[in-house]
Amino acid sequence: MTSPHGARRDALRALLREEHCDAMLVNDLINVRYLSGFTGSNAALLVHAEDAAGAEDRTIFCTDGRYLTQSAQQVPDLRRDIDRSCAQHLISVAAQRGLGRVGFESHVVTVDEHSALVKTAGTMQLHRTPGSVERLRMVKDDSEVALLRAACNAADTALAQLLAHGGLRPGRSELEVARELESLMLSHGADGPSFETIVATGAHSAVPHHRPTAAVLATGDFVKMDFGAVVAGYHSDMTRTVVLGEPAAWQREIYQLVAAAQTAGCAAAVAGTEVGAVDAAARQVIEEAGHGEHFLHGLGHGVGLQIHEAPGIGQRGTGMLPAGAAVTVEPGVYLQGRGGVRIEDTLVVTESTPELLTLTTKDLLVL
Amino acid sequence: MTSPHGARRDALRALLREEHCDAMLVNDLINVRYLSGFTGSNAALLVHAEDAAGAEDRTIFCTDGRYLTQSAQQVPDLRRDIDRSCAQHLISVAAQRGLGRVGFESHVVTVDEHSALVKTAGTMQLHRTPGSVERLRMVKDDSEVALLRAACNAADTALAQLLAHGGLRPGRSELEVARELESLMLSHGADGPSFETIVATGAHSAVPHHRPTAAVLATGDFVKMDFGAVVAGYHSDMTRTVVLGEPAAWQREIYQLVAAAQTAGCAAAVAGTEVGAVDAAARQVIEEAGHGEHFLHGLGHGVGLQIHEAPGIGQRGTGMLPAGAAVTVEPGVYLQGRGGVRIEDTLVVTESTPELLTLTTKDLLVL
Repeated sequence: MTSPHGARRDALRALLREEHCDAMLVNDLINVRYLSGFTGSNAALLVHAEDAAGAEDRTIFCTDGRYLTQSAQQVPDLRRDIDRSCAQHLISVAAQRGLGRVGFESHVVTVDEHSALVKTAGTMQLHRTPGSVERLRMVKDDSEVALLRAACNAADTALAQLLAHGGLRPGRSELEVARELESLMLSHGADGPSFETIVATGAHSAVPHHRPTAAVLATGDFVKMDFGAVVAGYHSDMTRTVVLGEPAAWQREIYQLVAAAQTAGCAAAVAGTEVGAVDAAARQVIEEAGHGEHFLHGLGHGVGLQIHEAPGIGQRGTGMLPAGAAVTVEPGVYLQGRGGVRIEDTLVVTESTPELLTLTTKDLLVL
Repeated sequence: MTSPHGARRDALRALLREEHCDAMLVNDLINVRYLSGFTGSNAALLVHAEDAAGAEDRTIFCTDGRYLTQSAQQVPDLRRDIDRSCAQHLISVAAQRGLGRVGFESHVVTVDEHSALVKTAGTMQLHRTPGSVERLRMVKDDSEVALLRAACNAADTALAQLLAHGGLRPGRSELEVARELESLMLSHGADGPSFETIVATGAHSAVPHHRPTAAVLATGDFVKMDFGAVVAGYHSDMTRTVVLGEPAAWQREIYQLVAAAQTAGCAAAVAGTEVGAVDAAARQVIEEAGHGEHFLHGLGHGVGLQIHEAPGIGQRGTGMLPAGAAVTVEPGVYLQGRGGVRIEDTLVVTESTPELLTLTTKDLLVL
């Protein structure tokens, strides 16, 4: 009977009791969306911590007058207050209720906002509970995986159509290809791109975060495409690199190297593995081939309501991958001035082989 | 000889001296972009306050290794440090330099970030200087107005083309129209939409912030379109409302009312006017017609590197409109369950008649 949002609030309550908080103020908008379903641009939640039937009745959602109708549709299951200063209002209600200790998102609330909340709180203690909701968000529930799958499918289908009609050909510009990919994703169910689509041709492919330009695709180029779709707030993320015309030996070599590293990274992304060990599994392949210094970034990151979220998968990362985490695995080798390869999938971590959500082939496509 | 960014840093220095700060840490990314030209996703600036030739030499830009090349291109005129923790690094340098008092963006820095900065600062005082750069950003320089003009032109041209080929007709969905508007803006120089395009038909037009759906345009509908383009970071914002087929008397009535209110609002948007008085000039027209309770939001807002920035123009707003401010004027009347009208322009405030940047006609278009 519980909605996914209700189940998420229950999970937060358990964390709050561990922190000996009576309630928590949630005002990060992504976290509010995760816990309530609300998608507007101003809102906060006061989630009561007690493990009892009354907790939901006491929990309050707050937004401003612009969202009267929308909040009634999206958050039918909670008391809804209308106040422009959502966080202030909820802390004021919490103080009136005589709560002793209320958690707040110290990684989100600014110094100035905090000063104002402290004034309103009076004798009630404001306790730092940074990242509590983000920790819950790491593990995706079925409804979230379904949306990620749809987002990945929009990207896969867009790339398939682009390839099918010869959309990757000498003479087209990076910008043209990027816009067509975005437009095709929209035609296949995306609400928008996950981020600014990267299309990088030739030497540009060696720049990890290249913004598409008027540069024209040419025979012999690597073309690196890093793109994704948003569906109902959930982000997909995929990178594929192709070659226009017959690949040179160095191109085949680094492509196969990155593909092998990517396979190793995916195989290591099993529940219970330290994130550093997942990064190392892929990085080692590249280092052993002597290209360690050409792989400049972390192996991957969580995806969900944000394009980058917990867990980070990098050399300095700590913590274990939980089952149900949705993450990217995206090693790359970048040879400055010549070209680079990145291969990236979005996948869901399980107790064994991860579930791959991006399904486009990783064989070297020679176009 | 000074670049626009150098001139902006000089203007900030004058503010810092008023606050008796030796320097300021700027780590809001939009403010960093405004002051340096850098467009990446991780950066900070330490701007020294002294009014002397050495101030620019001592000013430091910091970003991480991903942006080595990009930062060299975009910020050639400043010392560039590479460190993943930009703010921490710059505060550490400031402390090593023996500065006494450094301003920081207390409206942006979170409680957790602040705790870490305080540790690094040691005996150096961190002084709240919230909104300093935002105050400078209110007044646009010539290069900024040129980009706003280009952004508004992309939106005007997109709407003109949509209308020219009969793109607003019964049977099309809100989503189709929204996507075509966005695609046309891209074809006319936009880097992307300013925000999620609003297309609202029939009763949906009474929802101020409606998200486009599969709902189909029908004869007799108001169709409200609120959209804009981004060009080199600068946002345009425009709303037009049209009628499909012969308008009913109530439609003509509220359209003419909103148009009159919009004219009054634009006429009042003169340098030196209190923002509350600008809002009142438009609101009074609507109130006198008995529709005061159907105009639920403020009259407008600043636009620039953000779609919503200072100054806010609303009933509770305070402060005067400065010459050079780029703002929207967007009154609306919303009759729930029936339909609504909003008419919005982006304009630049002057000592007399504002310069209109969105040029699409405001006559009632009957399609």
